[in-house]
Amino acid sequence: MEPFDIHILGCGSALPTTRHNASSQVVRIGNKLFMIDCGEGTQLQLRKGHIHFSFINHIFISHLHGDHCFGLIGLISTFGLLGRTAPLHIYADPKFEELLKPQIEYFCKGMQFPLFFHGIDAKKHETIFEDNTITVETLPQKHRVPCCGFLFKEKPKKRHLIGDAVNYYNIPTYMRANIKDGADYTTPEGEVIPNSRLTKDPDPSRSYAYCSDTLPCPGNVEYIKDVDLLYHEATFAEQEKGRAAATFHSTARQAAEIATAANAKRLVIGHYSSRYDDCENLRQEASEIFPGCECSDEGKIFSI
Amino acid sequence: MEPFDIHILGCGSALPTTRHNASSQVVRIGNKLFMIDCGEGTQLQLRKGHIHFSFINHIFISHLHGDHCFGLIGLISTFGLLGRTAPLHIYADPKFEELLKPQIEYFCKGMQFPLFFHGIDAKKHETIFEDNTITVETLPQKHRVPCCGFLFKEKPKKRHLIGDAVNYYNIPTYMRANIKDGADYTTPEGEVIPNSRLTKDPDPSRSYAYCSDTLPCPGNVEYIKDVDLLYHEATFAEQEKGRAAATFHSTARQAAEIATAANAKRLVIGHYSSRYDDCENLRQEASEIFPGCECSDEGKIFSI
Repeated sequence: MEPFDIHILGCGSALPTTRHNASSQVVRIGNKLFMIDCGEGTQLQLRKGHIHFSFINHIFISHLHGDHCFGLIGLISTFGLLGRTAPLHIYADPKFEELLKPQIEYFCKGMQFPLFFHGIDAKKHETIFEDNTITVETLPQKHRVPCCGFLFKEKPKKRHLIGDAVNYYNIPTYMRANIKDGADYTTPEGEVIPNSRLTKDPDPSRSYAYCSDTLPCPGNVEYIKDVDLLYHEATFAEQEKGRAAATFHSTARQAAEIATAANAKRLVIGHYSSRYDDCENLRQEASEIFPGCECSDEGKIFSI
Repeated sequence: MEPFDIHILGCGSALPTTRHNASSQVVRIGNKLFMIDCGEGTQLQLRKGHIHFSFINHIFISHLHGDHCFGLIGLISTFGLLGRTAPLHIYADPKFEELLKPQIEYFCKGMQFPLFFHGIDAKKHETIFEDNTITVETLPQKHRVPCCGFLFKEKPKKRHLIGDAVNYYNIPTYMRANIKDGADYTTPEGEVIPNSRLTKDPDPSRSYAYCSDTLPCPGNVEYIKDVDLLYHEATFAEQEKGRAAATFHSTARQAAEIATAANAKRLVIGHYSSRYDDCENLRQEASEIFPGCECSDEGKIFSI
């Protein structure tokens, strides 16, 4: 199967620490790279991770807090300096275009690539990106400002031809694409061979959900049902539940409850408050509800 | 003597590398911290260097290229999150206020400290900051956009009282400040004791000049004559002299020539192009003209 990897570039929260960078991830699906959030220092993290800048064509910004978007102007500027010509698409609250454009006009003069802003309505669950193999849907979050998560889903894949059957019936090459799509095959003698004898089930269509920053959102559970990997913020431990609620964040336990309700296959937590020296207490707390919960960390890659 | 230190937070040039951060320095004079330039990632470098954010009250931005100022919005935002109340002064091209203000208004709501922008006319050599012990002057640079360096100078210090003489003449405490300022002492009997018998020369007034980004500017030599430490950009080696001229930068040799002409006591080079794996070739090139030239590097502290 093609790679479907989540590269963690930053999983800290609002205050920077020497342990964690501001939020950013790169989702690699096949040879396509998508960025989620772009806190300050993201371009340096890309360098450290040896990730090819130029393959990133779509950047999704969950919300307009600095730790999720202050790195974008630097990244765009660097794209310009590197002579990028491929279009770049940014999906964010419409206000972001208004804030960023004067800076881009001033700092990125002579930039050779077109930049497209796509306004997100964070209150809606909708498909905001689609190509031949994947879709990206928004997941409305509950935060102090309009905020949404993102659900990356592979589209249903083509069925696998059974080599022996294809040879046995001597199926012409030009008909095989249809059969991969589920068509039956009619022999020159008029016999109909059902697709089930010619093909095997396709590879599973994988999915990844990113939920940060947010209070627990049970309303999203239906959208992320059976998701292969859920990244959920766990800014605080349960002991700081009041503070989590007041600042519209989740505790590790709450992240695990959402993962359990959604029947997620894996849970990765992140967006740790700067008060925690390491994520072990958060991981343990979440693991009591969702065994096997994993901690994100800068440089870690989670493969689905 | 009180400390007079230059903390290098970043000494790379426009393109970020894993070796060098974007430009930023902190000048510590006594217990006062001044920041020069603030490229992306500066606040993380402050953390790594264990430098107390809250003691920084004045930030000087040499020019409006991203690698010298993209980190400021993040730093201001963090000051806000940390509950800063002390005023913050920013000295920069007037355009910067126009670009930054909408972002501050949006991202830093509820910030409890006043922010003052001071417009710099980069074409002029003038004093833009002064307090009881130091002055900061601009040094007009030659770059693609308005740009200036900064000269930090300690004011003349008070003379040292000679303890034995003070005791011998039994000089009253309230008269000592005047004597430190150079006054003679008249005894109750009317005898005039010349200041030279009561005091020793004061500590020297130290100075530091920051010149980046710029073509060599011989016109500044008179302002930085005998400077204790000159930080001068050396983006390129002499082999790339044409490219240096085309992009309005200096070579290591040119930096050394300016230091020599100014009779600088020490030369530190920086703002290295990302093409160089290390600064050794640049240091050697500069050292042929200015023996003892030093390389800046992230985390290095140069004490004057």
